Amino acid sequence: MIITMKSTATLDEVSSVLARIRETGFEPHEDHGVTTVIGVRGDTSSLEEDFFFLPGVSRVQRVTSRFKEVSREFHPRSTVITVGGARIGGGKPVLIAGPGGVESERQLRETAAGVKAAGAQLLRGGAFKPRTSPYAFQGLGEEGLRLLQMVRQEFDLPIVTEITGPREVELFLRYQVDVFQVGARNMQNYDLLNELRQIDRPVLLKRAPSATIEEFLLAAEYLLHDKGGDRGNSQVILCERGVRNFETSYRNVLDLNAVAHIKNISHLPILADPSHSAGRAELVAPLARAAIACGADGLLVEVHHCPREARCDARQQLTPGQFADLVKEISPFVRP
Amino acid sequence: MIITMKSTATLDEVSSVLARIRETGFEPHEDHGVTTVIGVRGDTSSLEEDFFFLPGVSRVQRVTSRFKEVSREFHPRSTVITVGGARIGGGKPVLIAGPGGVESERQLRETAAGVKAAGAQLLRGGAFKPRTSPYAFQGLGEEGLRLLQMVRQEFDLPIVTEITGPREVELFLRYQVDVFQVGARNMQNYDLLNELRQIDRPVLLKRAPSATIEEFLLAAEYLLHDKGGDRGNSQVILCERGVRNFETSYRNVLDLNAVAHIKNISHLPILADPSHSAGRAELVAPLARAAIACGADGLLVEVHHCPREARCDARQQLTPGQFADLVKEISPFVRP
Amino acid sequence: MIITMKSTATLDEVSSVLARIRETGFEPHEDHGVTTVIGVRGDTSSLEEDFFFLPGVSRVQRVTSRFKEVSREFHPRSTVITVGGARIGGGKPVLIAGPGGVESERQLRETAAGVKAAGAQLLRGGAFKPRTSPYAFQGLGEEGLRLLQMVRQEFDLPIVTEITGPREVELFLRYQVDVFQVGARNMQNYDLLNELRQIDRPVLLKRAPSATIEEFLLAAEYLLHDKGGDRGNSQVILCERGVRNFETSYRNVLDLNAVAHIKNISHLPILADPSHSAGRAELVAPLARAAIACGADGLLVEVHHCPREARCDARQQLTPGQFADLVKEISPFVRP
Amino acid sequence: MIITMKSTATLDEVSSVLARIRETGFEPHEDHGVTTVIGVRGDTSSLEEDFFFLPGVSRVQRVTSRFKEVSREFHPRSTVITVGGARIGGGKPVLIAGPGGVESERQLRETAAGVKAAGAQLLRGGAFKPRTSPYAFQGLGEEGLRLLQMVRQEFDLPIVTEITGPREVELFLRYQVDVFQVGARNMQNYDLLNELRQIDRPVLLKRAPSATIEEFLLAAEYLLHDKGGDRGNSQVILCERGVRNFETSYRNVLDLNAVAHIKNISHLPILADPSHSAGRAELVAPLARAAIACGADGLLVEVHHCPREARCDARQQLTPGQFADLVKEISPFVRP
Repeated sequence: MIITMKSTATLDEVSSVLARIRETGFEPHEDHGVTTVIGVRGDTSSLEEDFFFLPGVSRVQRVTSRFKEVSREFHPRSTVITVGGARIGGGKPVLIAGPGGVESERQLRETAAGVKAAGAQLLRGGAFKPRTSPYAFQGLGEEGLRLLQMVRQEFDLPIVTEITGPREVELFLRYQVDVFQVGARNMQNYDLLNELRQIDRPVLLKRAPSATIEEFLLAAEYLLHDKGGDRGNSQVILCERGVRNFETSYRNVLDLNAVAHIKNISHLPILADPSHSAGRAELVAPLARAAIACGADGLLVEVHHCPREARCDARQQLTPGQFADLVKEISPFVRP
Repeated sequence: MIITMKSTATLDEVSSVLARIRETGFEPHEDHGVTTVIGVRGDTSSLEEDFFFLPGVSRVQRVTSRFKEVSREFHPRSTVITVGGARIGGGKPVLIAGPGGVESERQLRETAAGVKAAGAQLLRGGAFKPRTSPYAFQGLGEEGLRLLQMVRQEFDLPIVTEITGPREVELFLRYQVDVFQVGARNMQNYDLLNELRQIDRPVLLKRAPSATIEEFLLAAEYLLHDKGGDRGNSQVILCERGVRNFETSYRNVLDLNAVAHIKNISHLPILADPSHSAGRAELVAPLARAAIACGADGLLVEVHHCPREARCDARQQLTPGQFADLVKEISPFVRP
Repeated sequence: MIITMKSTATLDEVSSVLARIRETGFEPHEDHGVTTVIGVRGDTSSLEEDFFFLPGVSRVQRVTSRFKEVSREFHPRSTVITVGGARIGGGKPVLIAGPGGVESERQLRETAAGVKAAGAQLLRGGAFKPRTSPYAFQGLGEEGLRLLQMVRQEFDLPIVTEITGPREVELFLRYQVDVFQVGARNMQNYDLLNELRQIDRPVLLKRAPSATIEEFLLAAEYLLHDKGGDRGNSQVILCERGVRNFETSYRNVLDLNAVAHIKNISHLPILADPSHSAGRAELVAPLARAAIACGADGLLVEVHHCPREARCDARQQLTPGQFADLVKEISPFVRP
Repeated sequence: MIITMKSTATLDEVSSVLARIRETGFEPHEDHGVTTVIGVRGDTSSLEEDFFFLPGVSRVQRVTSRFKEVSREFHPRSTVITVGGARIGGGKPVLIAGPGGVESERQLRETAAGVKAAGAQLLRGGAFKPRTSPYAFQGLGEEGLRLLQMVRQEFDLPIVTEITGPREVELFLRYQVDVFQVGARNMQNYDLLNELRQIDRPVLLKRAPSATIEEFLLAAEYLLHDKGGDRGNSQVILCERGVRNFETSYRNVLDLNAVAHIKNISHLPILADPSHSAGRAELVAPLARAAIACGADGLLVEVHHCPREARCDARQQLTPGQFADLVKEISPFVRP
């Protein structure tokens, strides 16, 4: 909520408004310019009418959305997050590729070699896989982290991998995970987000299958926001991976309307995951090109040295060769 | 997957099939009748073709869905969960009511008195509130649990309250929480579900805003399934709270198609939450009647002694008087 | 838009406002009471700010929605439409049943006998079937209308049947069709609606698979609205048949939130079609009970003398026996 | 359905199968090669089991989808539709631009001049506007067609305009409309499609707001299919304009997954309409770039000489200057 005082407002009138704000449990931020503008962070929707009628108040505006730290209104400059040699949000699209799940040393090493050669700057791979069914392959767990750490060294590829619960943070730090991924189904797992607020590593936040843009950015706000003097984690990378709809010939429609809109209203970098959107290998490259042309800051692509042997998401993973082709295909779509 | 052997299959052929199953990491269950039928639990979709061609195999059927413990196929009898004097799933609809959030001793006491008088058998109230925005009221936390425990005693009302992370289990047990609620946005927080698998309390599992019926039942499967000798938690109560769609005049369309279908295919009791579906008080009673008429095992209703003062979801909470009216309205709709 | 003038407004000020309204192409309706209230029908969203600042104006309110004739604000009394002996919207739920498609004389006669015996007051049956595929059975056409007219006589059952284009009106009148049904996919076929505006028969308007409530009621508004002195067709019966979503185990989630909300804001009767919602016979009765308990003014149910032989929608049609059971089941859910 | 006979099948066995097919009301198409393959068009889902057991039959395959004429399986070569100098589907993306509605001679002339100068090859403009509300501007009607015909001449710009009912065909032909547009809400108005089957002009078919890809292609199939000797209209241009979902900050999520998939399975050209998808001018260019990069055969863009004065969709229309910028922006994204 932004309260604009009249230019004729007295000091007493300003103090009254400030006191009123504090009484209701909110914290005002004053900006004294030609007129005094008072910003109030938080869900003030129930208060706006009350303030309008106070003496000295000229205007009361509901801030367009409820998010603050993630918005360009508060932080106009684009955020750039550096991981290894990659500047995510720095202008040049970043490529993060690797298998859906880490399955064996050989699989990981061959795939890492392939994506590195093709131009990927970071390696993704799931050690802890949240599966719809409790009977499906759940990932190699700590062994998977160990393998990721090993290829990280060998190929000089920073690692992006999904963390599924707050108690795993220690373990992930120990294995030198570079970027902590929050999966789509955990986007509103605030217990996990509150833990990741406190780490000094980038977080890749995936949009939930039917989260609104506001819910998505507010989930990011959990990571960024200050709590008193306790600063949040500003290294947040957003990721659009498709939203649920009625169509069954692909998995999730890639919401590039959201990518374009978020580039306008938020300073955070946003990647696209064409793999979980497509659900089928032959749609991955067209969606990748579209995302880059639209302005996404990079891609998260599933690549497997031998997709037909993959223990999950076999249908959508690319071979290293297909990934290399995709990389070539997108270069004309990188906006100047 | 169910493999039906030919009546002419030899013992060697059967053994081969069993060995093959074990090699791929699955556990076969044999049933020797007129023909041998071998059941295999788990996501066997990639294997079905392979098995079809083995000597002696007559037919390979993919089990209609991937869930087992929750399905009536495996457990035909309806599950009844007893909490206090209420038999959830026992035929008579159970009424669970209370405020969205626990806000003060007075608010909770007045609301509890009101819902008890109106016929509610359990009290709901949020101590830990997962809010879309980090700036919104997050609940009283432990103090909220203390107040709930207090009214539990005073009104002899078992408590249903939401747990938001695996590390809170201890605390909740200490405050004698009777039913642990998993919120809609945490339906696929497997870290939390795996923790709740191991407690000896009922779990109320809310369907995520756009979870398919299969995803919903498989989340329940996480709670029920055995891991080796480690038995799961069979006291699972499902709750339909509306699914996300394009309409904006209400919050989430109450999916009674799913309630009816789930009553057919699963033995677990399923409640309906008309409050989070309606988003507006005047739609709560019609939806409550519809849910009971459809066959839901009960209702979860938000009631506040003074809704306009509510710190969350004010628009949809009923007064104790309105709740009493709703209770009277649904009695003709209780199916014999 | 409703403009409330100040009680101190002069005649000149009122005249100015009226003139301004006409200049912008709209037609004002004045109501002179204690204060003058001026109503303006139409999409005035771009004008509201302008009017607020005119001398003498006290308040400018955007009417909650853009629909007028269908709304209870303009017509508070519930509309009752009489067809044969049935009073649709008159309090007692009306039952309309019959086959998805008219396939033969025998099929229609047996089904009509069955539904009549079970208590249906009107017979439905498609002569012109809009099929998703051009290769599917399109209906018997005029021959179907002839058969419907025949059983109408024989069983004293008024006929409800779908009209698919404006040029068929003549034909339908000739065969004595009692209620003209506009199919879900034609809800916004304004060319057809404008033709049906002019007939003197009830129109059953089905909600499109993903129409918002506003779009639905505005489609009805096309039927009701006056054009100059040319009065519209006020005999409009709404029908909710489920909305499209992501779930595949049923066809369309029955939106009872909409039924309840529409009963509040519109005076038109609204029925529910549990058949097209369920897509499977075993879900039809639970949804029918839910709809009636919710307050729907009646049901539209597909019944076929021999569903497995049906040329369309076989999976969801009930036998006459199942329909008779459904009729018994819903009687307790009829609200007093 | 495709029935593959065994190589050992006798002539009698083949004849039996053919006879059986005809008995059930379908028309078989034989292909005699090394083995006899019999294709059956239509919705044969209920028959497939029956045929499998007939003597001589080796395999029965359900054709992946129910559409035939639109599919690349039957017509592998991409369709190119020539309108004026533009080859739609010919490799180079075609640009169709113009105002949402034709409002006046000046507005149309200025906008036409602007889009022509910027590189558009066809002009769009609505003379008959299907509006959600009956009170909204419905278009200039025949006068609008006259103005379109006038600028067609003046600027040598073929015209694309929406036809809303079957009785308008004559009128549209008289005013030399080049491409007949079927609006999103009329995608399944089969009465209209059956009329357009018979004209010798290209039809631009817009996808309905929540049509599945199969429904979309089957609507196109209505236009293409033969009825006995009566050939259909093969000049069909598809258009993706966004699908309805839960997000409110834009209008309809542009489904590029569908565009990519349709390019694979159908030979028809497919355009994208970023305007109706975006609903806001600043999202139009990013979506346009994404669509072209993805492989769409062209764009349909709303341009107005003075958007703030537009009588419909003002928020999303571009100025001629903005359109010229968009044209420059997409040129790097044209795939070689």
